[in-house]
Amino acid sequence: MHKKLFIPGPVEVAEDVLQKMAEPMIGHRSKEASSLQRGISDKLRIVFQTKEEILLSTSSGSGLMEGAIRCCTAKRAAVFSIGAFGKRWYEMAIDNRVPADLYEVEWGEAIKPEFVDEVLGTGKYDLIALTHNETSTGIMNPVGEIAKVIKKYPEVVWCLDTVSSMGGTNIPVDELGVDVCITSSQKALGLPPGLAACSFSKKAIERARNVEHRGYYLDLLKLYEFIQKKDYQYPSTPSLSHMFALDYALNKMLEEGMDNRYKRHIEMAEYVRAWARKNFEIFGDEDNLSNTVTTIKNTRGISVADLNKELGKRGFAISNGYGKLKEKTFRIAHMAEFTLDDIKELIENINDILKL
Amino acid sequence: MHKKLFIPGPVEVAEDVLQKMAEPMIGHRSKEASSLQRGISDKLRIVFQTKEEILLSTSSGSGLMEGAIRCCTAKRAAVFSIGAFGKRWYEMAIDNRVPADLYEVEWGEAIKPEFVDEVLGTGKYDLIALTHNETSTGIMNPVGEIAKVIKKYPEVVWCLDTVSSMGGTNIPVDELGVDVCITSSQKALGLPPGLAACSFSKKAIERARNVEHRGYYLDLLKLYEFIQKKDYQYPSTPSLSHMFALDYALNKMLEEGMDNRYKRHIEMAEYVRAWARKNFEIFGDEDNLSNTVTTIKNTRGISVADLNKELGKRGFAISNGYGKLKEKTFRIAHMAEFTLDDIKELIENINDILKL
Repeated sequence: MHKKLFIPGPVEVAEDVLQKMAEPMIGHRSKEASSLQRGISDKLRIVFQTKEEILLSTSSGSGLMEGAIRCCTAKRAAVFSIGAFGKRWYEMAIDNRVPADLYEVEWGEAIKPEFVDEVLGTGKYDLIALTHNETSTGIMNPVGEIAKVIKKYPEVVWCLDTVSSMGGTNIPVDELGVDVCITSSQKALGLPPGLAACSFSKKAIERARNVEHRGYYLDLLKLYEFIQKKDYQYPSTPSLSHMFALDYALNKMLEEGMDNRYKRHIEMAEYVRAWARKNFEIFGDEDNLSNTVTTIKNTRGISVADLNKELGKRGFAISNGYGKLKEKTFRIAHMAEFTLDDIKELIENINDILKL
Repeated sequence: MHKKLFIPGPVEVAEDVLQKMAEPMIGHRSKEASSLQRGISDKLRIVFQTKEEILLSTSSGSGLMEGAIRCCTAKRAAVFSIGAFGKRWYEMAIDNRVPADLYEVEWGEAIKPEFVDEVLGTGKYDLIALTHNETSTGIMNPVGEIAKVIKKYPEVVWCLDTVSSMGGTNIPVDELGVDVCITSSQKALGLPPGLAACSFSKKAIERARNVEHRGYYLDLLKLYEFIQKKDYQYPSTPSLSHMFALDYALNKMLEEGMDNRYKRHIEMAEYVRAWARKNFEIFGDEDNLSNTVTTIKNTRGISVADLNKELGKRGFAISNGYGKLKEKTFRIAHMAEFTLDDIKELIENINDILKL
């Protein structure tokens, strides 16, 4: 039996979007491919709220994160981490011989703007890498406040991981001043995994031009220059199936209206949070909760694995806690195409199983 | 109107395989994902004729080529190129600060075993990178003969690009002694683009363990160690849609029988070659022609672009010559699920358009 995925990615994909994954192939050097990919970039510019270029990569979001930190650090990168995916930026830097320092806070906390100010104020860094929405903890960093600090340091390129938030929450990329904003298909955009996208600001382009040895497949500058020259065709054969599905899904998204979409996500989040507060506790900083996934403290000492097994029999899946938070927390994702009714149906089933 | 793709990738994908791309999602950390991905590796081991590990990468074949040359060169790489894709290996090495030398022959020629012997005999190299089947020229390197030479140099790791040949022609990976044999979904395996696979020998693993700064997303050793530890789950969310389709396509492939499949490819190749010899000329070394794509010299001075436009109206697409060979040659691919009847139908239409 298929399980409806209330996990923080891959998400449940709508049937009509899935069907677009089965479209017959076209040549990747055809005018049709150019027009498809150009159209996707144009629509993603609306979702990202940016006038900068959009790059597509046949990879997971991690691929573009690696490309970004490698291509855009000339001096030293400051990586701020609030969980598992924040730390990944740092590993990527080290694995690519990119000078970097890791600034971590306790899991469940957000990054404070003053902390960013203190670190960037040392003058050691020309890049900051930050997670917007950390699925391992359910915390969303206060990027509005952080943006004000980063703007004080015009030499710093800002890379932001919005893998699990873009499309589900309002992220005005240009207004914030994010230089490389990265997302992935399998989260709030509501597609299967396999495609990543990022914005690429003029400042980031200029920086990359001054960085040598940026690699090949994940070199953001190579992608950028190729699509300028070849009318939105990519150096390597891209996942055309994902392109068909993303183009279609973006049309649906813009039809729904981005503000309606964000509102829907907030409604779902608030419903889950209220339920969690009543029956358990919410994990982490209540002032910086994620709009796409809620992490719940297992204050009742239930077996999360058993709960998920029972839910599985009823056609639902939620997530256990991540890494060291396993069984101590559990996670319910509320993103992409789900509605409040889907969330209510899940919660009713959890209530029934746990006799709440 | 959909055009049947007689281009050297992406290939025409069978309708039932396409439908598998539209399967609903599963969690990438589930037992189901482990079992799916383990099964694919087992079946690919049969296709690759190898006992070594198989790695899957959500990227194009270029991603794994870059990973291979970066992870497995400790001293210096010798890159042998017979066309556009051979040269790409060299660019990848340089872009990653990997010491490398490029050995090129004229487009249309194959690499001679003596040339490899002469180069490796210098003792400068611990890696050789080679294209098996070069789609820019329609030449297939004589890997059987080349293998005998490479075996004389046990310190050399052999990386072979079989992106456009694996699944369409017999490549006994272990018997040849190839250490990293790379292929991609959208060629002779008959799937949409977006997934790559490679074998990874013990010698290559040992080598990678002695190379620092191998990157993150395309680090073959990281993929290898992760799937050992996590029962064939991957570090980043993989393209599950491609996994569903590849698993299904591999079952079909093994049902057809690999020998029957190779025979079918040879029959199609021979039919196109005979037609080309009669009406045009074959481009390049007649002793080393590709079984999956034929490059034809435009001895009649036709407009290839116009021919393709006319074919397009009838629902077919072939390829113009690659790069500097544009209009001087054209290419007909005969791979994946096509049968002799498909090829005959295409050729009849070309004959009709060109009044041959």
